[in-house]
Amino acid sequence: MPRYALKVEYDGGPFSGWQWQDDRPSVQGAIEAALARLERGVPRIGAAGRTDAGVHARGQVCHCDMAKDWAPGTLMNALNHHLKPSPVAIVAAASVPEDWHARFSARERRYLFRILNRRARATMEAGQVWQVQRPLDVDAMRQGAAHLVGRHDFTTFRSTMCQAKSPVKTLDALDIAEVETGAGREIHVSLSARSFLHNQVRSFVGTLEKVGSGSWPPERVREALDARDRAACGPVAPPQGLYLTGVGYPEDPFA
Amino acid sequence: MPRYALKVEYDGGPFSGWQWQDDRPSVQGAIEAALARLERGVPRIGAAGRTDAGVHARGQVCHCDMAKDWAPGTLMNALNHHLKPSPVAIVAAASVPEDWHARFSARERRYLFRILNRRARATMEAGQVWQVQRPLDVDAMRQGAAHLVGRHDFTTFRSTMCQAKSPVKTLDALDIAEVETGAGREIHVSLSARSFLHNQVRSFVGTLEKVGSGSWPPERVREALDARDRAACGPVAPPQGLYLTGVGYPEDPFA
Repeated sequence: MPRYALKVEYDGGPFSGWQWQDDRPSVQGAIEAALARLERGVPRIGAAGRTDAGVHARGQVCHCDMAKDWAPGTLMNALNHHLKPSPVAIVAAASVPEDWHARFSARERRYLFRILNRRARATMEAGQVWQVQRPLDVDAMRQGAAHLVGRHDFTTFRSTMCQAKSPVKTLDALDIAEVETGAGREIHVSLSARSFLHNQVRSFVGTLEKVGSGSWPPERVREALDARDRAACGPVAPPQGLYLTGVGYPEDPFA
Repeated sequence: MPRYALKVEYDGGPFSGWQWQDDRPSVQGAIEAALARLERGVPRIGAAGRTDAGVHARGQVCHCDMAKDWAPGTLMNALNHHLKPSPVAIVAAASVPEDWHARFSARERRYLFRILNRRARATMEAGQVWQVQRPLDVDAMRQGAAHLVGRHDFTTFRSTMCQAKSPVKTLDALDIAEVETGAGREIHVSLSARSFLHNQVRSFVGTLEKVGSGSWPPERVREALDARDRAACGPVAPPQGLYLTGVGYPEDPFA
């Protein structure tokens, strides 16, 4: 069966997450419903990152197996037609080898977390950022974040529901940028790693907000990491600021 | 009565426009309802730009007259509290002299029009951009736009409903930028003038889209302008891409 890689963008707001659930709307369910309009009996699809309820994606990647040969552009347009009016769009499609796997072939996941740091409530950005009203000290956040980069036991920063076999992961990058937007000041936390633990990014960001607002000294991030204890983590940041921005493969299927 | 200038941000989507209407939700109505929670009998408020249905604002300015003396920050916070959950926020407040007028004291209005230029339907940006699927030639758009800058009779580019006494206005700037965003390519059209005619920006943008897509040669913008005939205008671009970004005064009341 010909296999296709799909790059997917979505507003996670109306969904219970990526993963199919029989009683609630999911992004996987929306795409599978669109595929079912094209061919009967299309197998389940798998994605590189199973985003949680409310988390958005700019560059989620999944793959699907079709019975017929489709020109990738035709497949993309047909899926987008049937995805209407869901806030889900296929932004790229490519033919891939039959042993290519969106999840297992991936070598890198990239996330962005957007904090809107202003007093007045978000209007246009509602549902697309985490709004923090207290002014955040970005230099202090960067000092705290420096402790997290590299290979560590991240037990403190993973959900108790996390199903990964090991809490040891390598965080390749965690960069914090200040961005002036039409709405004021945003703080963008960008992260990349081969893979992430469940709730790891939101646990990082909630902890770094404690540092930025002055509640925690930056060194307390190191102590929290060393504790290897979920109870040492700061609050988990809310999902609506989080974006899966991209997935890296040995060769970019969409290039 | 002490007078206050308010800088207002809103998502125009759910509103019939800035201006109060007795049977439909308006931004003015939302702010006046919040004011009525603070004091009885607050007079009607006036704004620098009466945005149409669906048009957004980052920096609309209005003024209000209060019976009591309010610290501007307290007034802003109280209004924002009562504006919930409307997508309207007061982002700055300032005391101004009693003869200061949001509309008549203004010397400049600034607008931004966002075009999302990609094939796949917008998800996160739905309602915040005009999506154009055909690739647009920005250089051609700039050539067309050059004809519009300066002092002209803009009869072609104003709504037949426009109530301005004269169609002669001076367009101080019309800049077109290409911006790479998480969602792909956006084209940002930024404009400034002392004042604009009704539907002028959307008439410009709809006309320039004809040029960018290759349907019109750039010189046809000049011919349309010279015709001084509404029928010579291109289509009017939809409201959801338009933002009132700021209003200029001899002295910035919020500085």
